[in-house]
Amino acid sequence: MSPTPRALERLIREFTKLPGIGPKTAERLVYYLLKQPKEELISMAEGLRQVKDEVVNCSQCFRFSDQNPCPICSNNKRDKSILCVVAESQNIPVIEKTGAFAGVYHVLGGLISPLEGITPDKLKIAELEKRLKNNGVKEVILALNPDLDGETTSLYLAKLIKSLNIKVTRLARGLPMGADLEYADEITLESAIIGRREVL
Amino acid sequence: MSPTPRALERLIREFTKLPGIGPKTAERLVYYLLKQPKEELISMAEGLRQVKDEVVNCSQCFRFSDQNPCPICSNNKRDKSILCVVAESQNIPVIEKTGAFAGVYHVLGGLISPLEGITPDKLKIAELEKRLKNNGVKEVILALNPDLDGETTSLYLAKLIKSLNIKVTRLARGLPMGADLEYADEITLESAIIGRREVL
Repeated sequence: MSPTPRALERLIREFTKLPGIGPKTAERLVYYLLKQPKEELISMAEGLRQVKDEVVNCSQCFRFSDQNPCPICSNNKRDKSILCVVAESQNIPVIEKTGAFAGVYHVLGGLISPLEGITPDKLKIAELEKRLKNNGVKEVILALNPDLDGETTSLYLAKLIKSLNIKVTRLARGLPMGADLEYADEITLESAIIGRREVL
Repeated sequence: MSPTPRALERLIREFTKLPGIGPKTAERLVYYLLKQPKEELISMAEGLRQVKDEVVNCSQCFRFSDQNPCPICSNNKRDKSILCVVAESQNIPVIEKTGAFAGVYHVLGGLISPLEGITPDKLKIAELEKRLKNNGVKEVILALNPDLDGETTSLYLAKLIKSLNIKVTRLARGLPMGADLEYADEITLESAIIGRREVL
């Protein structure tokens, strides 16, 4: 006698497939959903069905968008000579919000991670190379996370891009706003000292 | 120019409705889903659609089940004279796993919580009273969480059940298996001392 209904177990299994959702959390979510009106569940189901149909990859920058080319790639006011390389689509809104970047983007779709079997050919690196060869790109900004995989990918890309005689930069390292010197790690502090700026 | 596609934003909103899922987690889940094959998303959507149709409330104990009455209520080997009151359906499999209980259950659908506006009339308490009046129940075990809402509900129910001349018990308090005396809180330790058992 199985104490949990089959349809419930099935939905729990579906939720367990999501990253960071274990069996206990999945169970909690599904029991919560069961208590909601049916329309809520149908609305969520609809959302899941639609998302893959309505969201496409921009054929230029490979971000998720509802247009192809995406609003940034098709915007004539954006400077096509500066290319910002990011790991994932969701990094773009964060950079856009700063208002400090007026160029275009290139989404890799991940980071090089030999341990997880993500080799350069699994990312949009060949596409980046092609893009750099055909267009008048003058600078590539590597906006990748300052961690192991991000550093590996940055080094790999820097070598590739330099060989095409294009300037490569990366985001500055240093103390984040509101940080406490007392608790800063050595590498961040070292970067902050090396990258120090004159106070004018 | 909104940087996030609409279908994507919609699905993020749907996930944000779930308990414990904030906008950042919802975003992470949805971007993960976008990278999965379409069949995965349809399978999840199907699960959401089905669950409310296939899962019903048992008309006797009010648990979620795929049968009505549920397999426990319709099992003649279960002792109908002992009733275990739990807050939620998902508490039942946990108690069943112990194998220490052979009676039947009653699911309240929550706990009394004046702060959250959950008053006794929002729970299956009138139904419990009706069940106790009609059947030959000899003992009610209150298996509610040992926290503020659980205690409030236990006190409320104990008064009600005693007025019907039925024995009321609650789960024992004490040190959990593998606990360290050093780190036990005072209330647990007090309960463990008061409820001490003779070593035979």
